[in-house]
Amino acid sequence: MQQKLITLLSDFGLKDPYVAEMKAVILGKCPEAQIVDISHEISKFDIRMGAFVLASAAPYFPRGTVHIAVVDPGVGTKRRPLIVESKHSFFVGPDNGVLMLAALKQRVQHVYVIEKTECMLPKVSKTFHGRDLFAPAAAYIATSHAASEVGKEVKSYVMPDFAKPRLKKNTVVGEVLHVDDFGNIITNVSTEMFKETGIRKGKSIKVEIGRASVTLRLCSSYGDVSVGEALAVIGSHGFLEISVNQGSAAVRFTAKSGASLRVWLQSHV
Amino acid sequence: MQQKLITLLSDFGLKDPYVAEMKAVILGKCPEAQIVDISHEISKFDIRMGAFVLASAAPYFPRGTVHIAVVDPGVGTKRRPLIVESKHSFFVGPDNGVLMLAALKQRVQHVYVIEKTECMLPKVSKTFHGRDLFAPAAAYIATSHAASEVGKEVKSYVMPDFAKPRLKKNTVVGEVLHVDDFGNIITNVSTEMFKETGIRKGKSIKVEIGRASVTLRLCSSYGDVSVGEALAVIGSHGFLEISVNQGSAAVRFTAKSGASLRVWLQSHV
Amino acid sequence: MQQKLITLLSDFGLKDPYVAEMKAVILGKCPEAQIVDISHEISKFDIRMGAFVLASAAPYFPRGTVHIAVVDPGVGTKRRPLIVESKHSFFVGPDNGVLMLAALKQRVQHVYVIEKTECMLPKVSKTFHGRDLFAPAAAYIATSHAASEVGKEVKSYVMPDFAKPRLKKNTVVGEVLHVDDFGNIITNVSTEMFKETGIRKGKSIKVEIGRASVTLRLCSSYGDVSVGEALAVIGSHGFLEISVNQGSAAVRFTAKSGASLRVWLQSHV
Repeated sequence: MQQKLITLLSDFGLKDPYVAEMKAVILGKCPEAQIVDISHEISKFDIRMGAFVLASAAPYFPRGTVHIAVVDPGVGTKRRPLIVESKHSFFVGPDNGVLMLAALKQRVQHVYVIEKTECMLPKVSKTFHGRDLFAPAAAYIATSHAASEVGKEVKSYVMPDFAKPRLKKNTVVGEVLHVDDFGNIITNVSTEMFKETGIRKGKSIKVEIGRASVTLRLCSSYGDVSVGEALAVIGSHGFLEISVNQGSAAVRFTAKSGASLRVWLQSHV
Repeated sequence: MQQKLITLLSDFGLKDPYVAEMKAVILGKCPEAQIVDISHEISKFDIRMGAFVLASAAPYFPRGTVHIAVVDPGVGTKRRPLIVESKHSFFVGPDNGVLMLAALKQRVQHVYVIEKTECMLPKVSKTFHGRDLFAPAAAYIATSHAASEVGKEVKSYVMPDFAKPRLKKNTVVGEVLHVDDFGNIITNVSTEMFKETGIRKGKSIKVEIGRASVTLRLCSSYGDVSVGEALAVIGSHGFLEISVNQGSAAVRFTAKSGASLRVWLQSHV
Repeated sequence: MQQKLITLLSDFGLKDPYVAEMKAVILGKCPEAQIVDISHEISKFDIRMGAFVLASAAPYFPRGTVHIAVVDPGVGTKRRPLIVESKHSFFVGPDNGVLMLAALKQRVQHVYVIEKTECMLPKVSKTFHGRDLFAPAAAYIATSHAASEVGKEVKSYVMPDFAKPRLKKNTVVGEVLHVDDFGNIITNVSTEMFKETGIRKGKSIKVEIGRASVTLRLCSSYGDVSVGEALAVIGSHGFLEISVNQGSAAVRFTAKSGASLRVWLQSHV
């Protein structure tokens, strides 16, 4: 039997019946589905955060996984419901960018608008497409239907609102991609940018973040510095992170997602 | 193989081992069970909230699903442990009303008291019936035993404490059923009550809630009004909801579950 | 088909992609795994709390279950990654004590250091061993490999930092093991210690906790006292607990995990 893996991501939180209603619909239509929650604690209406968390987790899932992402302030309006087929998996959700950071990392093949009534609940509310439209459409795909069956192919889609890091003299101007639950500040400055610089682990780098200008040692692991000390580290997703060993860098530097920062591309003596 | 779907709802929260202990007991007795969490973030001891969340989610689950609900301030006292068999599914939990809003929506067939020791753990604590009694009883039912085997049938049971909306002149006096994690205020005023009035989508209605008296446009979706604007909407469970587009109506109107409200049954110019 | 049950415990919280990344790795390598979350709400870096929660839940899981626990402030440093084989199950995680309270309760048979590259991801980060090392090692074990295949056996390991209760005149000096989400104060004073005393249910005992010195009735269930009243109870894990019926003992007595307390071993008139 083929594995039918469906993941869920939303800003619904965990106290309400909403997540369970989506799972109920999926299991009604695809009893053998394995459902994995990616996160339901995305900040309300925060499409960027949803896009980042989905794009971080999706690459680790097996080929053919169907990912549903519902951060959807425009539910019931004209924004289109999409299924995106990539080289590796499927993405189901609103056309507001939440799917596309993850999908584009896996080479997008086709984008379809969900139109076919067979892949919706008989009655589709205008306030809960997660349950009435995205869950049944995902189950439809998981039960071996081609994505092309759900509706017409489209060529355009909304992109999530991320800035690219820019080189400016001998610095990179980047932004905070995400602040995790530990308070690690994940930036959009990738390891690649360090390759042709003199920066190596063990050296110090200068970082400007918010009003702070700090010199941080580039470390391999949090424990390379004393407890409570700040450090820079190449995180587990390949981005430069600013952390505090057993503490919260987000509290120390009051940084939020989207905040700009600057990193000097030379090791600091 | 038949699907053996068991759902869990509780006020346990997610930091403690309690939910996992229930799942461990279920999977020990019914290895092929698919377990779905409905919510473990029910407010402590809030039977009404548990009843509402269960009743919202249960209708979407496939026939034969076994629902366990443990909001149980009376655990270990004389309150009876029940299995309720409805036309559609089974409900397992304490006789305090938490099961009955959901069960009655599905036409209750039989109510049994759990008495048989074969469907309990060998040692039953007086502080954790979720693990020692409800989980094994649910696994017992899921493994193809008849509900009638667990104990004697009873005819009475405790009802949850919900008021019915009352017509009063040209208004409905209702109450807040639930405030969701978005801050949507879900009322007990159903769509049906609007049928013979002049109220239609696009019209405005007058609502008194707490100390506020507001005129709200009856919309299809949140995005029908500007960001930050309040609206009325028929929610995804068929009830009138008061919402704020991309904001929290609960914060705006400081409304809590159980608070009374009044809706004028005529569209307001 | 044999049941392949894998549990997860961490201090990751639920908003980030980390838990899902671990599940994705497991399901990629062991598609038939049933994954159960024990808790991801362990307080950050709190090895004691992780050890207590794991040790509470683990005994209820079926034989052969593989438990992964990642509370790991030393990730990427020299602390060793372990697989502990007990009479009943397997424990996978860092050598910092988080595994050992649970493992020792089940009689430890062998302890191995994870060294074999076949049971790691191709690239092992120094900040996320949960995903890159513990998840694949657990999947390796779950797919019928012997634990001895993962690396060399070792004889020593780090123990978690729990004090044993001490008899002192006619009192037991103990500590708070855990404060649960209800505010129940779980102590390390076990039922056994009461056996040869005159203490029985219905009698009162004297307890000193923090600055408070209180006389509490030893009850069977919370409902044996009035709502809002404090009580002592033998909890569902066999330890003396201090509770408030439908309230929080932790708030009433401002007790935290690790706080010391004293219980008089004689019933108080």
